[in-house]
Amino acid sequence: MMDINKEIAEHTTQVEAIITKYLPKESGYQKTVMEAMNYSFLAGGKRLRPMLMQETYRLFGGSSDIIEPFMAAIEMIHTYSLIHDDLPAMDNDDYRRGRKTTHVVYGEAMGILAGDALLNFAFETACKGLMQDVGNPAVARAVQILAQKAGIYGMLGGQVVDVESEGQPLEREKLDFIYDLKTGALIEASMLIGAVLAGASEKEQQVILQVAKDVGLAFQIQDDILDVTSDMETLGKPIGSDEKNHKTTYVTIRGLAQAQKDVEKISERALEGVASLSEKNVFLNELIRYLIHRKK
Amino acid sequence: MMDINKEIAEHTTQVEAIITKYLPKESGYQKTVMEAMNYSFLAGGKRLRPMLMQETYRLFGGSSDIIEPFMAAIEMIHTYSLIHDDLPAMDNDDYRRGRKTTHVVYGEAMGILAGDALLNFAFETACKGLMQDVGNPAVARAVQILAQKAGIYGMLGGQVVDVESEGQPLEREKLDFIYDLKTGALIEASMLIGAVLAGASEKEQQVILQVAKDVGLAFQIQDDILDVTSDMETLGKPIGSDEKNHKTTYVTIRGLAQAQKDVEKISERALEGVASLSEKNVFLNELIRYLIHRKK
Repeated sequence: MMDINKEIAEHTTQVEAIITKYLPKESGYQKTVMEAMNYSFLAGGKRLRPMLMQETYRLFGGSSDIIEPFMAAIEMIHTYSLIHDDLPAMDNDDYRRGRKTTHVVYGEAMGILAGDALLNFAFETACKGLMQDVGNPAVARAVQILAQKAGIYGMLGGQVVDVESEGQPLEREKLDFIYDLKTGALIEASMLIGAVLAGASEKEQQVILQVAKDVGLAFQIQDDILDVTSDMETLGKPIGSDEKNHKTTYVTIRGLAQAQKDVEKISERALEGVASLSEKNVFLNELIRYLIHRKK
Repeated sequence: MMDINKEIAEHTTQVEAIITKYLPKESGYQKTVMEAMNYSFLAGGKRLRPMLMQETYRLFGGSSDIIEPFMAAIEMIHTYSLIHDDLPAMDNDDYRRGRKTTHVVYGEAMGILAGDALLNFAFETACKGLMQDVGNPAVARAVQILAQKAGIYGMLGGQVVDVESEGQPLEREKLDFIYDLKTGALIEASMLIGAVLAGASEKEQQVILQVAKDVGLAFQIQDDILDVTSDMETLGKPIGSDEKNHKTTYVTIRGLAQAQKDVEKISERALEGVASLSEKNVFLNELIRYLIHRKK
């Protein structure tokens, strides 16, 4: 059996070769903002969202390059959200993944503009897909899913509630809302766009949406667990930060033992969902298992 | 002959009745960002961009409601750009049109998020149009124009260069670039989307694009002229601010007399362009004349 870490690394390389094709060329008077966009986009990461999109697309038998601009677009939206989250008025973070954050390198004004630019460019990129197969309702629907899951009823809505709740104890319902939108929405968008573009039926789309919700939730709960159980060396960042910041998490509400049981239950449900659709895509199963049971 | 100010006011009322239908309902945990979006959107203004879009649509015989989500979307993009321009890291303005700016009322984090939300919601709204007539290439093209003219090759590109040039003398070529993109691009988007959705031919689209470029440029030059020739009472804001800020403008480069001649020439060209397309839409002509020869 192949080492999952190595397999993911190979997939990351392949995904990056696709999505970086869609980055803007750094030229013209407005060159600086393009540099800032590319600096942030190229900061690394596993490219999980475009990877999940591509694997879901393959699960339903998709094989054309119509998926590519959407893979790039979802990563642009993820990147813009990180740039704006790091701004002084938000989390005020100077470093991300060991590199200086965008506003630290390019200044605060350009940080704001680079985030705006990536959000806008995500739609410009998705429109390339739209024009590539104009008249195909599935592609139009994919653009709409992207817009809906990124906005106030998706990721941004979750971010707003997270910002407003800072330093306050959270009830379970509100925590679920933040997890569902802030972390979940882009994972849902990724998998649903993959399914829609591959021609999945309404019923199959419903199954994959539930799988995505489970993956997003289990991913986030595992994050909370690792903040308690891991060590700084393994995690690559300080542990115990949630407790230090008096942050309500899934672990503080349900307790560590129950949270660990819940992750098992939710991830089993997600894997059963995938299995009910197809037995073909082994890597998608491996990827989901990895995301949920990861140690860092 | 009707009073143009009164006529525009009536059109503004009609346009507002359309575009406000597309605003989000203020509800749910993420209510605050919706309030901030609506606060900014409802701050007033003449709604020139959606008005130009609607009139261009009518010029080419358009009569369905497919134009409506795009009218709302272009105003959302204009509004987001104002919110982010006013932020402390950008122009740091506390007031706009006599009302407190969004970040002053809702805080800086929510100001950033409300701008992001409006940009994203513009595409969600345009996607409503896309799904309303799915499979129609003109509607797909309209979404693409919106994305392209708002982004790094459009309005945002101009804004980046404007921010970077602050406090520096500008050569003519760069000033033209900023005017063309920062002010011009959304006017081009408005008129071009109106033309495309009404089924204008490629050649007609080229003519209307040139008209829009002229309208945008003349509008901006007139702005520079008024900053020199008007008085505070008429203009409703301090005059002479460009000179005070050592700002390079069309007037500082070309001189006042030449700038006034140029406005005449450019606006005549724009009106001839419209006349070459149709003699039907009298109000569009009046509107262009007003925009260019306005006293405030």
